[in-house]
Amino acid sequence: MNAIERLVIRLSKLPGLGKKSARRMVYYLLDGDPQFTRDMAAELSALHETIIRCGVCGSFTEADPCPICADPRREPLICVVERAQDVQVIEESREFQGRFHVLGGLIAPLEGINPGDLRLGPLLHRVREQGIREVILALNPTVEGDTTALYIRQLLKDFPLEVTRLASGLPVGGDLEYADRLTLSRSFRGRTRF
Amino acid sequence: MNAIERLVIRLSKLPGLGKKSARRMVYYLLDGDPQFTRDMAAELSALHETIIRCGVCGSFTEADPCPICADPRREPLICVVERAQDVQVIEESREFQGRFHVLGGLIAPLEGINPGDLRLGPLLHRVREQGIREVILALNPTVEGDTTALYIRQLLKDFPLEVTRLASGLPVGGDLEYADRLTLSRSFRGRTRF
Repeated sequence: MNAIERLVIRLSKLPGLGKKSARRMVYYLLDGDPQFTRDMAAELSALHETIIRCGVCGSFTEADPCPICADPRREPLICVVERAQDVQVIEESREFQGRFHVLGGLIAPLEGINPGDLRLGPLLHRVREQGIREVILALNPTVEGDTTALYIRQLLKDFPLEVTRLASGLPVGGDLEYADRLTLSRSFRGRTRF
Repeated sequence: MNAIERLVIRLSKLPGLGKKSARRMVYYLLDGDPQFTRDMAAELSALHETIIRCGVCGSFTEADPCPICADPRREPLICVVERAQDVQVIEESREFQGRFHVLGGLIAPLEGINPGDLRLGPLLHRVREQGIREVILALNPTVEGDTTALYIRQLLKDFPLEVTRLASGLPVGGDLEYADRLTLSRSFRGRTRF
């Protein structure tokens, strides 16, 4: 096996890439400027040294605490998300001016993921210390997301704060005809005055 | 812009990758074993040093001449392809036991690609020196592929060899109903006795 095939096999382990698309990429690199490939290699090789986890919220950052946790203008709300990449998605929507907390997973007993595996201790610590007014659960509307949301609501029930969850319903631009029953049922239960 | 975003932007320049899938990959790498990312970086950084172009056929190889050109058991047929990756596809089909020649493009005057830009001189040289019996044009059935095929046929008309072209027609498993007119027309003209 030569260097092309070794790299193809490695790239095809990345999410969403099969062997065909991985091969296409390697040939694209071979046909292109060697400097581009070398720069990519340098960025990859430095990735784990440059990017660390924020000790407060658990998201990926170059500085600890991360720019969001270090920003005093952020409101005393905490948006709880499953994974670090969810922070990026919400930040890009510019919908939320508060802080974040990355759980690092969702409760899934069948997969052996229990509450103890999530960053719940640090969440309680922050709620106690940072004068948090509201905890927004931005967890996926799945069985695991629902379970985790219920668990956290229970955990926070004695704190003087609101626990809310992102609305679940029809996606904007979606079609009623193609909505599944559960989504439809949630969009009815969560209907708002118009 | 931090190291994650820089890498996302670089990866999203690869063919078939948008910013969303590139970001998914970077987070996959960050969540995974740092050694995997470092190995990938090392393989990328060595890519252009390890993989060179074969001086005979023009395909990518670790040794010059490449294993195919260096193999005396290969038959004296030359399969002419547009790009180096086409060699890999044909080799994997195990359909062909001859040799290859990579043109490095197809004639496309509107894009400024003229016969002088392709590796046609080396092809003539090989045809003269290597006692080639047949030249198989494995070029895409497109306008550029057709133009290039006609040009090469003309170029080789005084040599004592056959010039053939891969059959064009309905793909195996395809559906007549969805075949375009040109494919249908070619499959009629190229029909074989059954």
